[in-house]
Amino acid sequence: MSTAAVAQLQADVNRLQHELSTVKLGEQSPHHGEQVYVGEYLVERLVQLGVTKMFGVPGDFNLGFLDFVEDHPKIDWVGNCNELNAGYAADGYARVKEGGLGVVTTTFGVGELSATNAIAGAFSEHVPVLHIVGAPSTSQQKNKPMLHHTLGDGRYDAYYRAAQQFVISAASLESKDTAAAEIDRVITECIVRARPVYLMVPTDLAYEKIPSYRLKTPINTEPPANDPDVEAFALDEIVKLIEQSKHETIILVDACAVRHGVKKEVAELVRRTGFPVYSAPMGKTSFDEQYERYGGIYVGSISHPEIKEKVESAKLILSIGALKSDFNTGNFTYHIPISRTIELHSDSLSVQFATFPGIGMKRLLPKLTARLQPFEPAAARIPVPKFELPVPTEQNEIISQAWLWPRVGQFFRPKDIIVAETGTSSFGVMEVPFPTGAVFVSQILWGSIGWTVGATLGAALAGVELGYKRTILFIGDGSIQLTVQELSVMIRSGLKPIIFLLNNNGYTIERYLHGMTRKYNDIADWKWTKLLDTLGGEEGKTCQSYRVGTKSELSKLLDDPAFAAADKIQLVELLMDPRDAPSALKRQAELSGKTNRYVAELPDAGRGEAV
Amino acid sequence: MSTAAVAQLQADVNRLQHELSTVKLGEQSPHHGEQVYVGEYLVERLVQLGVTKMFGVPGDFNLGFLDFVEDHPKIDWVGNCNELNAGYAADGYARVKEGGLGVVTTTFGVGELSATNAIAGAFSEHVPVLHIVGAPSTSQQKNKPMLHHTLGDGRYDAYYRAAQQFVISAASLESKDTAAAEIDRVITECIVRARPVYLMVPTDLAYEKIPSYRLKTPINTEPPANDPDVEAFALDEIVKLIEQSKHETIILVDACAVRHGVKKEVAELVRRTGFPVYSAPMGKTSFDEQYERYGGIYVGSISHPEIKEKVESAKLILSIGALKSDFNTGNFTYHIPISRTIELHSDSLSVQFATFPGIGMKRLLPKLTARLQPFEPAAARIPVPKFELPVPTEQNEIISQAWLWPRVGQFFRPKDIIVAETGTSSFGVMEVPFPTGAVFVSQILWGSIGWTVGATLGAALAGVELGYKRTILFIGDGSIQLTVQELSVMIRSGLKPIIFLLNNNGYTIERYLHGMTRKYNDIADWKWTKLLDTLGGEEGKTCQSYRVGTKSELSKLLDDPAFAAADKIQLVELLMDPRDAPSALKRQAELSGKTNRYVAELPDAGRGEAV
Repeated sequence: MSTAAVAQLQADVNRLQHELSTVKLGEQSPHHGEQVYVGEYLVERLVQLGVTKMFGVPGDFNLGFLDFVEDHPKIDWVGNCNELNAGYAADGYARVKEGGLGVVTTTFGVGELSATNAIAGAFSEHVPVLHIVGAPSTSQQKNKPMLHHTLGDGRYDAYYRAAQQFVISAASLESKDTAAAEIDRVITECIVRARPVYLMVPTDLAYEKIPSYRLKTPINTEPPANDPDVEAFALDEIVKLIEQSKHETIILVDACAVRHGVKKEVAELVRRTGFPVYSAPMGKTSFDEQYERYGGIYVGSISHPEIKEKVESAKLILSIGALKSDFNTGNFTYHIPISRTIELHSDSLSVQFATFPGIGMKRLLPKLTARLQPFEPAAARIPVPKFELPVPTEQNEIISQAWLWPRVGQFFRPKDIIVAETGTSSFGVMEVPFPTGAVFVSQILWGSIGWTVGATLGAALAGVELGYKRTILFIGDGSIQLTVQELSVMIRSGLKPIIFLLNNNGYTIERYLHGMTRKYNDIADWKWTKLLDTLGGEEGKTCQSYRVGTKSELSKLLDDPAFAAADKIQLVELLMDPRDAPSALKRQAELSGKTNRYVAELPDAGRGEAV
Repeated sequence: MSTAAVAQLQADVNRLQHELSTVKLGEQSPHHGEQVYVGEYLVERLVQLGVTKMFGVPGDFNLGFLDFVEDHPKIDWVGNCNELNAGYAADGYARVKEGGLGVVTTTFGVGELSATNAIAGAFSEHVPVLHIVGAPSTSQQKNKPMLHHTLGDGRYDAYYRAAQQFVISAASLESKDTAAAEIDRVITECIVRARPVYLMVPTDLAYEKIPSYRLKTPINTEPPANDPDVEAFALDEIVKLIEQSKHETIILVDACAVRHGVKKEVAELVRRTGFPVYSAPMGKTSFDEQYERYGGIYVGSISHPEIKEKVESAKLILSIGALKSDFNTGNFTYHIPISRTIELHSDSLSVQFATFPGIGMKRLLPKLTARLQPFEPAAARIPVPKFELPVPTEQNEIISQAWLWPRVGQFFRPKDIIVAETGTSSFGVMEVPFPTGAVFVSQILWGSIGWTVGATLGAALAGVELGYKRTILFIGDGSIQLTVQELSVMIRSGLKPIIFLLNNNGYTIERYLHGMTRKYNDIADWKWTKLLDTLGGEEGKTCQSYRVGTKSELSKLLDDPAFAAADKIQLVELLMDPRDAPSALKRQAELSGKTNRYVAELPDAGRGEAV
C-alpha cells in the first residue's frame, strides 16, 4: 500500500471519528431534543470560534437574522457605512485575531456585490473571512418573482456564481436538514484554508428550527495530517541539504506564516537553531523585528544592499509561507535559484525541484525544529546584519519621505498595531524596525487603495480585545477618499486610532508609475482637520486633529505624551511633496515601468512621460 | 419561405451593406493609411456617440489609456472618489442622456470589482453603461505572474467571468487585429439593448496602432427591424381588441419606454389618439405629468383609489415598456388580467396570451399610432382623473412626510432633474406631479441605497450639457453615508445641486420592513451642515448648508428666490421623525411583510416585532 493511500486512510479515520462523536452526542440528546433556529446556530458557531464582532450593513433580506446577532450577549453588530468598508473591516479583524475569522453580513445583490472587492482581496491575501448574505426566502428563490435587488430576469443564482470566483468554498442554504452541516463545512474551510467563504441564508431558513446537539462538538479547525512516510522522507532531505550547505542557511518568513498560523513554530525554530531570519514585506512582524537573529526585510533588488547580499549569498534558503507577488519581491527580482530553496507552505512543501503536495508546514515545523536543533552551535555563528533605520540629518524643515519613516519609527511602541495603506505608506514603513509585539497590517499583494480605513476599524476592534495598546494608520489623501466614512464608525465604536494622513495632493504612487503631472492623478483638497468633527466626533473632546507642515512640529507632536497616550481618536495631516516618495517605491516604480507598457514604442510617439 | 426567414435575410442584407460600406471606406484609404492607437480609437468612438464625460478612478493598468482621455478635447475625465460611485455616476449620466451611454473606467481587479454593484444595477434597470477595465498586458495575461491586484493563483480570467453575470456583452481585447471590431460590437450592444457591457483593455493593446478607417462609419445604434408580416398581423390584432374594448383602453407607460427611447413615440401616440395615459413609478416622467390626458401613477393596490379604479376597470391596457418588479407594482398587486393586456417591449410584443418575439416597440409604435388615430373622437372622451397632490393642512410645525412631498412639489420647476433615493424619498416623491420637462431619476427595481449620490453627479453633469436648470436630490441620512464622498466631486466639478437630506436617524424604510427599534437600524449622527465645507466647499461662497426643523422654516427657504436660483451647491438638513414614512411606503411594507418571513411562526417564538 502506498504512503498516500495510508495517509488517506488515516484522514478518513480522523474524519469518521469526529463525525461519530457528533452523532453520539445527538443520540444522547432526547429525541426531538433541544432545538435552535438556524440563524442562532450560525451565530453560536461564530461565538464558539471567538468571533466578537460582526461587520456589515442591514438590508431587508438579513434583518431577521440580525435579530439573533443583536440578541446574543457575546457578539456585537458593528453597523458599517457601506459593504465594501464592512468587508475590509472583517479582513482587518481576522488579520489581528490570528487563527480566528472575520465575518461580514450583507444583503442579497446590492449589498453583497459591493463587498466583492473586499472578499477577493481576502482570497488573494489568505485571510479567513466569512461572508454571510441574507437572501430571499427559499420559495421566492424557487418561484423567482421580480423582487427588488434582483437582475429582473429571474437569475437568482447570478450573485452566487460571481461570488464563487473569489471564495474557497460556498453554500446556499436550501433546507433545514442540511443547514447545520453546510454551515460547519464552510466555516471549517474558511479557517483551515485561511480564505474567504460565502454563505447564503434565506430569510425563512434563518427561522427554521433544528436540533442543537451538533453545537456540543466544536468545529475542528486543525490542518489535515501529513503523510508520515512522505514527511519523514522530506525531513531527511532537508537535513541533508542543510548539512551540505555547511550550515550557511537562512530563514525567510512571509505572509502565509502569519495567515496559516505558524508564527510560534517559526519563533521556536529560530530560538532553538539560531539560523538568521529575514522576512519579506508581507511577512513583516511575522517574526520579532528586535530579535538578535533577525536581519530585516528582503525584497529582491529593492532590498537594503547588505540584506540583499546576505540573503542571496546563502547556500540554502528555508522559505516559510512565501507569497511571491511583484510588490513583495521587488518585481520578481529574487536572485535565489530553486536549487538553493526549500519552500514550506500550508498545504505543500518544495525541496529544490521536488514538490510534496499535502505536506503542510504547521505539522512539519516542530519536527524540523527537532531535527535542526543540533545545528545550533554552527548556525548561531552566521552573522546577521542589525536591522535599523537611523533618522537622516536633513538641513531643512520639509517633512520628506526619507525622514518621516525612521522618525515615526521612534514613536512606535510594543503592542502597537501599525496599518499602512498601499502606496507611499506601505513602501515607507516597510524598512522601519518595529518594536517587539507590534503588528504590521498591510495589503501588498491585492493593493486596493482605501482598504486600510475599513481594515483599521476591524484591526482596532480586535486589538482592544487582545490587549494591543494603540492602532496607528498611515494613509494618503487619495486613498482615504475611497472609504472615508468608516472614520465615523471608529468614532461611534469609541476607538482611538492615530491616523497619519499624508496630504500630498493626489495619487503619488501612480504619479511614479505613470503620469507625474497628469490631472487624473490629482484629487480634491478636503479640510482634513474638520473631518473627525464632521463625521460625529467632538473636536477637542472625543477627537483631535492636527495639521503639521514641518519636521520640528511633527517631532514636537510625536514627543508629546498626551498625543502618544492615544486616549481619543486623532488625525494628523502631514503636508508633503507630491513628488516625494520612499526610495523603495521609486525603485519599484522603475522596475514596474520596464514591464508595463503605457507608452507607444513607435519612434514618433512621444506622448506621456517615459517611466 | 417563412416570414421569420425573410426577416432574417433582410437583417443579413442590412448588416452586410453596413459592413461593405465600412470596408470600402477602408479601401479608399491608401494602403497602410491613417492609423490610430487602439485607445484613441475607443475614445473617438465614445465621442462620436456624444459621450462628454468619463467616470472612474485611475489605477496603474489604465493610466496609459487615460492619457488619451485627458488629451481629447471633447471628453472630460471626471475622477471619482471610488469606483462604486463612479459606476453610479455613469448610470445617472446615461439615464439623463437618453439614447447615449455612460462610461466608467476602472483598473484590473481592485477597481472593477468595486463597481460590480453599480454595473449589476444598470443591468437590472436597463441602463447603457460601458465598463472599461485597464488590464495587465497581453503577455502578462498569458504568463500569469503574481502581479498586485491578482488573486495570487494565476486566475487572470476570474474578474471577467464574474463580470459576465452582470453585462449583456463582454470583450477582452486580445489582438490589435480584432480590437476595433470588438470595441464596436460591445458599444453597439450597450446602446441597442440598453444594458451594461464590459471591455477589458490590456496596457499594451491600448498603444497598438490600427487603421482608422472604421471610424468614418458611425456605429449603427438603430434597433433591429421587425418582421413585416408578423408586425402587420399583430397590428391587426391590436386594432381588433381596441375595437372590441369599445375604446375603453388606457395606456400605461413604464421604465423601458425611457430606457429604450420611445418617449417621443408614446407622446405622439397619446397626442394623436387621446387615450388616457398613466405611468408606473419607474416610468414617472416618461410622459409629461402636466398633460391633460395624463392620470398619474399606477402601483397596483398602493395606487390612489381613483387611479386604481380607472386603470383596473379599463377593458384594455396598452402597457409600454413594463418592468413589473415588486416595488413598481405595489408588491405584484396589479389587478389586470392578461386577457386585457397588450405589452410592448423593446424586443417583443405580447397581445393577450400570444407573444411575438422580435417585434420591438420602437418601430411598432409609429405604425400603431397611425392605425389608432381614427379612434381619437371616442378615446378623447374617456375621463382622466386630474393628477394632483394638494398640501395637507396640519396644525403643527413638524415636517411630516405627508406634508413634505406636496410642499416641495410646489418648488419644482420645468427642466428640473429630480433624483430620489430608494426609501422614504422614492416613495414620497412618486405621488407628486412634476412640471413639464422635469425628469425623475430613481432606482426602484435595483434599490441600492447610496446610489443617488453618484447618480446625481452623473445626472447633473449630463443636465448641464442638455440645458436642464437644476438637479435636486432627496436622500436619507442612512443612505448618504454609503457614498458621501462623491459630494466632493460635485463641488470640484462646479455643479450646483440642491440636496435635501432627510435626517431621520437611520434606515427608516428598514424599520418599516423589520426591526422598528432595533439598533442595527440606527446610524451615527453627523454634522450634516459642515459636510460640504469639509469636503472642499467654502461655506457661504461656493456652498451653502441649512438645518431646518419646522414647516415654516422650510417654506420660507423654498420661497427664497436666492435659494431657488441654485447658484451654488446647497444642502438642506431636514429634521424628521424616524417613525414617519410616506403612506405608499407604509402600504408597501405591509405587503412585503406578508411575503417575507423574518419571524418564526412557531407559537412560542415571540422574538422581534411582527411586521
